Amino acid sequence: MSKPLILVTNDDGIVAPGIRALVEIAAEMGEVVIVAPDSPQSAKGHSITISNPLRLKKVQAFPGIDAYECSGTPVDCVKLAKHVVLKGRTIDLCVSGINHGSNASINILYSGTLSAAMEASLEGIKSIGFSLLDFSFEADFQAGKNWVRKIIRYALDQPFMHGNLLNVNIPKLPEAEIKGLRICRQADARWVEHFQEGRDPYGQPYYWLSGEFVNLDQGEDTDVHALHQGYISVVPSMHDLTNYRAMEHLVGLETY
Amino acid sequence: MSKPLILVTNDDGIVAPGIRALVEIAAEMGEVVIVAPDSPQSAKGHSITISNPLRLKKVQAFPGIDAYECSGTPVDCVKLAKHVVLKGRTIDLCVSGINHGSNASINILYSGTLSAAMEASLEGIKSIGFSLLDFSFEADFQAGKNWVRKIIRYALDQPFMHGNLLNVNIPKLPEAEIKGLRICRQADARWVEHFQEGRDPYGQPYYWLSGEFVNLDQGEDTDVHALHQGYISVVPSMHDLTNYRAMEHLVGLETY
Repeated sequence: MSKPLILVTNDDGIVAPGIRALVEIAAEMGEVVIVAPDSPQSAKGHSITISNPLRLKKVQAFPGIDAYECSGTPVDCVKLAKHVVLKGRTIDLCVSGINHGSNASINILYSGTLSAAMEASLEGIKSIGFSLLDFSFEADFQAGKNWVRKIIRYALDQPFMHGNLLNVNIPKLPEAEIKGLRICRQADARWVEHFQEGRDPYGQPYYWLSGEFVNLDQGEDTDVHALHQGYISVVPSMHDLTNYRAMEHLVGLETY
Repeated sequence: MSKPLILVTNDDGIVAPGIRALVEIAAEMGEVVIVAPDSPQSAKGHSITISNPLRLKKVQAFPGIDAYECSGTPVDCVKLAKHVVLKGRTIDLCVSGINHGSNASINILYSGTLSAAMEASLEGIKSIGFSLLDFSFEADFQAGKNWVRKIIRYALDQPFMHGNLLNVNIPKLPEAEIKGLRICRQADARWVEHFQEGRDPYGQPYYWLSGEFVNLDQGEDTDVHALHQGYISVVPSMHDLTNYRAMEHLVGLETY
C-alpha cells in the first residue's frame, strides 16, 4: 500500500517553528506536501482572495519534501493545493499548524490555521488544526509531539471521520505534565477588547486592537476547561452554522 | 422612549447601493450609525486586523446620519463601532448588507457581510446579515424592501432573539413574485472551483480563483431550496462550531 498523502499548511508561514514540528511528525507517517502562506496570516479567518491573482512558488524548506509558498490566505493555500499542486490526487489528511497560540473556543472563527483545516474538511478531506497555547516564536513544540503523532495516526486509521474536522489545542506544559486528551465542546468564551489609540508620525489618529480572552463558560466539558486542567483538547467542529434550537423560536417571523 | 440604536455595516463599502437601501429602511425605525469598510471586503470571512493599526474617518454619505469609513475588514468595523464610535452606548441591533450576491449555505463562512453580523452577535447584539442573490452593482434592492423592513421590525420587537444572529437571503425576483419568508437550515452545498492560470505582463505565472456553486443537498428545509422556490430564506446561525454528533464517535481517541 502506498503511503497516505498528507497536506500540511498553517497561518504563520513556512518558516515558523510550529509547521516544522508538524512536518517532522507527518513525514513519519505519509508523503508530505506543504502549501503555506508566504507571509504571516494570523486572524485571517476564512478569508479568500478573489479580486487578485495568487502566486505560488516552489521552495526548498525541508529536505526531500515538496514545499510551496502561496501569496494568499491559509484557505487559499488549501484551494491551491487541491486544484493546482495536487490536482487529480487524493489527499488523505490535511494538518494545519502547529499554531503559535491558542485556537480554543471562539478563536476558531478568527483563526487562519483552523479555517484552512475547515476548508479541507469541506472538500471531504479529514483535517486537523493543531495549536499550542504559547504565542512565542521559541515555543516548545516537542512537549506535545507524542500526542500530535497519536492524533494524526488515529485520523489516518479511521476509514471515516465524522464531520472531518478536529480542533486540537495543546497546553503549554512540559511533556510529563500533560495529563491526557479530552474530547470537548467549544467553550462559550469571549474576547474583552479595546483599541489602543494613538497618533502616527504625521499626526493622524490610529486604532490598534488589543484584548484579553475571558471564559465565563462554567462547563467542565469545554476545551478551555480541559486545557486549564492540563489536558489536550479535541473539539470535533463543523461548517453547519445553523442554530437549530433557535429555529422553533422564530416561527412567528414567517407570519409576522 | 428613545429610538433604538442601529449599527449598519457591510462588506462592499459605503458607496454600494446595497448599504444605501439598508440605511434607508433602518433610519425609519431607529437612530442609525454606519461604520463600513473603505474598500471592498468581499470574502474576507471573519478576518481581523491585528498586525497593523486601523484608520477611521467620519464621512458625509447620508444626510443626517453619522457615517464612518474604516480601513479594515467588516469584523474590524464592528469592533471599532462598539469600542470607539459608540463607546459606552448600547447597540440595539446590527444590520449588515444588503450584500450584492448570495450568502446562503456555506457562503456564510466566506462572507464579510455575515461575519460582521456574527461578530456583533458574539457581543450579545441582535444581528442580521442581508444578501440579495444578484451580484451586479445595479441590482434591484427595492423588490425585497418590505421584507427587510419586516424582519428588522421583528428583531427590534423581540426582547430576546435566540442566538442573536439571522442570515437572510433575498431571491432575485420582482416584489410580486417573492412568495414569502421561510425559516431554514443552512444547505450543505459546495463550491466546485478551479484556478484560471495565466502569465502576467512580466511572464510570471498567476492563479485566479473561479467557481460554481453546486447544491447536492436534497432537503426541502434548506435556504437554497427556499430561495429556489421564490422565498426569502432566514437561517438562525451561531458561533458554536462544535460537531456534537461527532463527539460520541471520537471517544476511542481518548484512549487510543
